[in-house]
Amino acid sequence: MAVLETVLSRIDANQDDALKRLFGLIEIPSVSTDAAYASDCARAAQALADDLNSIGFDASVRPTAGHPMVVGHAKCGKPGAPHVLFYGHYDVQPADPLELWQTEPFKPRLADGPTGKRIFARGAADDKGQLMTFVEACRAYMQTGGLPCDVSILFEGEEETGSPSLPAFLAANADELHADLILVCDTNMWDRETPMVTAMLRGLALEEVTIKAATRDLHSGLFGGAAVNPIHVLARVIAGLHDQNGRITLPGFYDGVEELPPEIAEQWRDIPFNPAAFLGAVGLSTPAGEKGRSVLEQIWSRPTCDVNGISGGYAGQGSKTVLPAQASGKFSFRLVGRQNPEAVLNSFRDYVQKSLPPDCRVEFQRHGASPALQLPFSSEALGRAHAALRAEWGREPVIGGSGGSIPIVGDFKRSLGMDSLMIGFGLDDDCIHSPNEKYELSSFHKGARSWARVLDALAK
Amino acid sequence: MAVLETVLSRIDANQDDALKRLFGLIEIPSVSTDAAYASDCARAAQALADDLNSIGFDASVRPTAGHPMVVGHAKCGKPGAPHVLFYGHYDVQPADPLELWQTEPFKPRLADGPTGKRIFARGAADDKGQLMTFVEACRAYMQTGGLPCDVSILFEGEEETGSPSLPAFLAANADELHADLILVCDTNMWDRETPMVTAMLRGLALEEVTIKAATRDLHSGLFGGAAVNPIHVLARVIAGLHDQNGRITLPGFYDGVEELPPEIAEQWRDIPFNPAAFLGAVGLSTPAGEKGRSVLEQIWSRPTCDVNGISGGYAGQGSKTVLPAQASGKFSFRLVGRQNPEAVLNSFRDYVQKSLPPDCRVEFQRHGASPALQLPFSSEALGRAHAALRAEWGREPVIGGSGGSIPIVGDFKRSLGMDSLMIGFGLDDDCIHSPNEKYELSSFHKGARSWARVLDALAK
Repeated sequence: MAVLETVLSRIDANQDDALKRLFGLIEIPSVSTDAAYASDCARAAQALADDLNSIGFDASVRPTAGHPMVVGHAKCGKPGAPHVLFYGHYDVQPADPLELWQTEPFKPRLADGPTGKRIFARGAADDKGQLMTFVEACRAYMQTGGLPCDVSILFEGEEETGSPSLPAFLAANADELHADLILVCDTNMWDRETPMVTAMLRGLALEEVTIKAATRDLHSGLFGGAAVNPIHVLARVIAGLHDQNGRITLPGFYDGVEELPPEIAEQWRDIPFNPAAFLGAVGLSTPAGEKGRSVLEQIWSRPTCDVNGISGGYAGQGSKTVLPAQASGKFSFRLVGRQNPEAVLNSFRDYVQKSLPPDCRVEFQRHGASPALQLPFSSEALGRAHAALRAEWGREPVIGGSGGSIPIVGDFKRSLGMDSLMIGFGLDDDCIHSPNEKYELSSFHKGARSWARVLDALAK
Repeated sequence: MAVLETVLSRIDANQDDALKRLFGLIEIPSVSTDAAYASDCARAAQALADDLNSIGFDASVRPTAGHPMVVGHAKCGKPGAPHVLFYGHYDVQPADPLELWQTEPFKPRLADGPTGKRIFARGAADDKGQLMTFVEACRAYMQTGGLPCDVSILFEGEEETGSPSLPAFLAANADELHADLILVCDTNMWDRETPMVTAMLRGLALEEVTIKAATRDLHSGLFGGAAVNPIHVLARVIAGLHDQNGRITLPGFYDGVEELPPEIAEQWRDIPFNPAAFLGAVGLSTPAGEKGRSVLEQIWSRPTCDVNGISGGYAGQGSKTVLPAQASGKFSFRLVGRQNPEAVLNSFRDYVQKSLPPDCRVEFQRHGASPALQLPFSSEALGRAHAALRAEWGREPVIGGSGGSIPIVGDFKRSLGMDSLMIGFGLDDDCIHSPNEKYELSSFHKGARSWARVLDALAK
């Protein structure tokens, strides 16, 4: 088994080649939300399996009803050693709007930033850069004497679409994938210098709504005033979802939403978090969510309802005097505590149905649903990881929450009873899901070193 | 001067060639709302000028700040003869959604319909087929002895975008364009057998609204619950524009809206109009507009507010967990009576501004504004045209209204004091502005014959 200091030195020495490997992965436009990129998703999966096999894993690409999984295994050879399963996702968000990118989204480039070099590309942070920190840590171990514990790896290609194939895949491969602990690298640091272990994850339920009325688009002069306008109907549906205090009006929506335990609430009050700076970084100044809640609560421990996209009628240049036959909205709900995603979506569907005026009908399309997750703050693994991160970064790690969703974490907990340790090296200004996504070179480098330390700590 | 019967026979004999000429004009995709088609608009204008010159007009293409005008003149040689100015528009609506067309929109085809042959193409009815009925009537006169009165022609290329260049063009060419009466062919018949003179036109005011919030698209997990969502803001703007009785809530909106004179209200009650059939033809059953108004009132004599298009966030396949930086809506107001378009749009802008929560700003883009128009029911020209149409169709023509707008009619009335006689041969099922637009071959043929009779009647 390798000695930690040797492994860390090897990570440092490997850095140039590690960057080339990451760039090669980023150049594959594995956009999972658009069927046009299906073959690119398959290519990305194969490239990852090939890389894992090249360093000594037994890895393969596994088909699903959607985009494939990558599964790999490597043993450390020590009887009784712990077994960890690392999770990441190779799929990325669409790059649009393309015109706002300073360079092409799938041609990664290294550029100087105010605090060091940065990697710019779609997927640089979410999640290709992050997952490669773990692969590079494993590579360094396997090049210098071997892993300190048994390691399995699962990469999926549908995280950005709500992981529709994951539950069936987990059920079918439960024995192979079982481990003592899951490691996940898809979250952020507290700030550029302070690492964070994420202990709360919001869930996510996605529903697309299409309201249809007339059999065809109508001339707004000939029919305007008599024909129902589905854009108006959809607008009223959206407008009715929140009350004046920013609370969601769906019956039963807050069932399972609990207040924070006092000690966590106190810890969050003490975190040096500046809401004005958080919002100011994206041009905002006023928390727009539930009244009477701190911004950290709004984004970590409170549920939301947002429309992520809306369309209907004429969207080209100029005007078109048309009454459209239909209008669509893509709705998402961030869930917390014990909220039941199915119950939330059923309540939403009931609400939409009841909102329809005569001559309108609605079509629903579900894009995924996963519950929220909260890890026990007292776990042994959490304590060891906390110490390992402190050793690498020289700062006290934050134990926090995340507003984003990682469906597999909930699936593993509920299906197999396994806990996940979420450690990520993203930063709030990484622009994930937006144009000009970036990942700090320091995140990529010290992220790999952090995983080397965490594996070492877990094995002791 | 030609004898009417000779002219009508010539129209009948010209019919095959007339259809070829119309197809040639339709094949030019003169979409005025999209800058990509600017050269096609110019080509359509030149083709019309060339055709007018070929039959004896003195015609030319006139540049504007937008798409060009076509102006042509022909004298009858009789001192004291009346002078009419005919108006039509050569621009057409965008053809999208393309996938709903049974054949290509700019490749006209003749197909059998339940009551005779039909011409299918974008612009077949609105307005290329309609304007060519008048050109063919003039052609037949000029081939058989000459026009019965002085005729000027004005074709514009921006009707579908609210005629932004028209007021300046009229002002600059007022003397040249002045006539005794304006003839317009951009309206419908009452039904397949019954002609109609349109005496009321709704005005139109167009405003695009873009609500902006954060400086970039945000991850809905990281920011959801704290960041304002411009789609929600826009939805609340739309939802607040109508009250529960379908009335528009903008302050001062109904200023200048008057009740129908009793005799017109009675005439409309007696028209054999079937609201269930009108709405049923497009898959609807329930009038969705102002409560307590008949459907004819809703579409002819009452004002409206509609959103013709909405966009914001992710509109591709699947889902994207994004909080968009902006959302846009294309709003239109149909105006009646003495409603002031500027006052309506100013009230709308005030309302939107007042609806904005913190951190949101709005950008407005005006796409045109024109007031409504009502013709005097007692005019001499109306009586003569009424008799000419009765002679051609063998039915009592309906004197009605139209929900659509023809901005030039208002501009001529208000700028130059000239009345317009609106006679068109479109049908309610022509699908103008929609996929599979068509024009009945009988409309095209008997429309030309109708204009021949109207010109003869006006000259007597």
